[in-house]
Amino acid sequence: MTNNRYAHIVMQRCDTLAGFSEEPDRLTRRFATAALRDANTAVVGWMRAAGMAVRQDALGNLIGRYEAEQPGAKTLLLGSHLDSVIDAGKYDGPLGVLVALACVQRLYDQGRRLPIAIELFGFADEEGVRYHTTYLGSQAVAGTLAPATLELADADGITVAQAIRAFGGDPSRLADARRSGDDLLGYCEVHIEQGPVLEARDLPVGVVSAIAGQSRVAVDLIGMAGHAGTVPMDLRQDALCAAAELVLAAEALARDTPGLVATVGQLDAQPGASNVIPGRATLSLDVRHQDDARRQQALAQLRQRAAQIAAARRIALDWRIAQESRALACDPALTERLAQAVGALGYPLLSLPSGAGHDGVAISALTPIAMLFVRCKGGISHNPAESVDQADVGVAIDVLGRFLLGLRTRD
Amino acid sequence: MTNNRYAHIVMQRCDTLAGFSEEPDRLTRRFATAALRDANTAVVGWMRAAGMAVRQDALGNLIGRYEAEQPGAKTLLLGSHLDSVIDAGKYDGPLGVLVALACVQRLYDQGRRLPIAIELFGFADEEGVRYHTTYLGSQAVAGTLAPATLELADADGITVAQAIRAFGGDPSRLADARRSGDDLLGYCEVHIEQGPVLEARDLPVGVVSAIAGQSRVAVDLIGMAGHAGTVPMDLRQDALCAAAELVLAAEALARDTPGLVATVGQLDAQPGASNVIPGRATLSLDVRHQDDARRQQALAQLRQRAAQIAAARRIALDWRIAQESRALACDPALTERLAQAVGALGYPLLSLPSGAGHDGVAISALTPIAMLFVRCKGGISHNPAESVDQADVGVAIDVLGRFLLGLRTRD
Repeated sequence: MTNNRYAHIVMQRCDTLAGFSEEPDRLTRRFATAALRDANTAVVGWMRAAGMAVRQDALGNLIGRYEAEQPGAKTLLLGSHLDSVIDAGKYDGPLGVLVALACVQRLYDQGRRLPIAIELFGFADEEGVRYHTTYLGSQAVAGTLAPATLELADADGITVAQAIRAFGGDPSRLADARRSGDDLLGYCEVHIEQGPVLEARDLPVGVVSAIAGQSRVAVDLIGMAGHAGTVPMDLRQDALCAAAELVLAAEALARDTPGLVATVGQLDAQPGASNVIPGRATLSLDVRHQDDARRQQALAQLRQRAAQIAAARRIALDWRIAQESRALACDPALTERLAQAVGALGYPLLSLPSGAGHDGVAISALTPIAMLFVRCKGGISHNPAESVDQADVGVAIDVLGRFLLGLRTRD
Repeated sequence: MTNNRYAHIVMQRCDTLAGFSEEPDRLTRRFATAALRDANTAVVGWMRAAGMAVRQDALGNLIGRYEAEQPGAKTLLLGSHLDSVIDAGKYDGPLGVLVALACVQRLYDQGRRLPIAIELFGFADEEGVRYHTTYLGSQAVAGTLAPATLELADADGITVAQAIRAFGGDPSRLADARRSGDDLLGYCEVHIEQGPVLEARDLPVGVVSAIAGQSRVAVDLIGMAGHAGTVPMDLRQDALCAAAELVLAAEALARDTPGLVATVGQLDAQPGASNVIPGRATLSLDVRHQDDARRQQALAQLRQRAAQIAAARRIALDWRIAQESRALACDPALTERLAQAVGALGYPLLSLPSGAGHDGVAISALTPIAMLFVRCKGGISHNPAESVDQADVGVAIDVLGRFLLGLRTRD
């Protein structure tokens, strides 16, 4: 079969999985739900048909193993997640599982075994929708899931432990879900880009350099409310004008700093009447870069700029770091092999950071990681309009397949 | 008695009226309520004690008449309103009624009549809180109250007509409330500034040049939502950044244009998540100037600027005029007499526009108007923290008293 045939099967299977939902009219498939069990059951069948031995771990992750040509070989981990956000698209997660599965299927169809073994993971929770904490699945595999997590309750009062049990797992044996062993070569994940860069560059795939670090800042600007008709401009302490300056300062710095993105996604002006000068403005500032030092530098610059803006306007500033996560560099050696596979197939190489988090963030605690991004239409994700081209999926299958062929058991 | 004594009485009476409220713990005195009836009753007593003949018109306005030294004299109207906003201060409205009343009291105490008659109005509705339409009282006096207004219902389903009847008025005879006649010299109102200009200039009073015209614009900016981590800066269509530019453009134009005020009081960014680039921003723009041509020019400049901002960012712009009111110039002759009274008492003259509306706007349909502003603390109004100094009230009594002495019956 050509890669076009395998890509077609992947597209069909994405459609099939999209039918397994908690809701009749849209795709929602959270951790440990009946919808996820149905999805797992379908993938089990496809894994077996590709010659894999399949098991579900104590948390509910699905694992298919394709043995090497010889016993005692090293193992490469592949995978992505099978859970979804609410009102999701069809490709965020499943595409990565199914592209990897297609590569194994092609080897099996060719009667071929590799010098390395492959373990393909369908993680049970990456989005964190049900328990408001991400990576339950991959953290269990990495052995980094905090035991207290088991006590978290969902909106219906069902704890993680209860949900795992109902899903056929065993919360008392979560430690067994850790993929221990010194046989690991690394982890490679295929995922839709969820951004517009590949489309803008007219490229089917790109190699991920790092998963960006992120700072989220909560900013409060407190001036003085007043009557929009009676307070002259030079006597105002307009908190929204100060906020507007900060919004544009963040944008300007990010435009001038390669690789930096800065976003004000929330802005609230109080009291919020058309004839009242805003006395208070509250905003969120999200800053990301694949280099932590550059992110911290940008943050310091913006904080200083915010202080200048506030001082010049006689406005009080409260700047609070609400969340911070470090950048995660992809493994240079594995990433270089992925890049070689892209080049060998005749495609220009684009190396790009991931601004969003992925299971690889958790798995990196266990073994080095690499990631391949697939172009998606308009960069749209977490939305039913999520769309990928079958031809691009074919390229991803070819790149990952070539990558697999190039790996050897390390001595 | 010195003006200090009269000012002290005014302060006490403001306190007394503040006790007539619909609510136990804060001052709320809307149109045609028992609280307003109690306030009217108190003012009736004070008017009579100042030698005035008192009546209540068909709508519920209170009118005290102080006769001239001779029959057939011209009449000057004085007044302000006795209703309040919700959780009001003590001075917005009552101060103007009571300062005028103090002037009449002083004349009466001196056994003095003027060449002109005085009619002092306590308007029953200026704030428009109960029926969401302002100037019910002064419109009835001006004869401009639309008959359909009688059918408006408040939150409890009580119509204006029913409320007037319960208040002792007669909705079928509203036409009688019109202060017709060719004996009118004009209308003069004392009011707290409700802004910080007099305080900033260290002046007790100021003469109002005009009541500013106002435009309120509803602006919609529609870009493209996206993931805050995955969309590079150069591929964004961030609606909030466009809005921020417009906020600052409005501020800059108003700062550079004498007498112009421009305010963005409401700003809403959608979808409003910290990790999502805003795809839509909706804002209110309030622009005021005492010169309608300058206001229109500013509005045209801001609209053009908004279009430039939107075009440069590939963002759609919707610009809708939500409300517009023309400026109202105070009468030059009456205003010059007020200014002379200020100067004669040794105070520097400050002429300033009113950014807020007042009963004079409605009364101007009947007769020329003038206004005197009294300094208020911090420019704060529509708030229990509203505050005026007794000494400033004394100055206002002196200025208005001198103004009255200078008027003659026109031939």
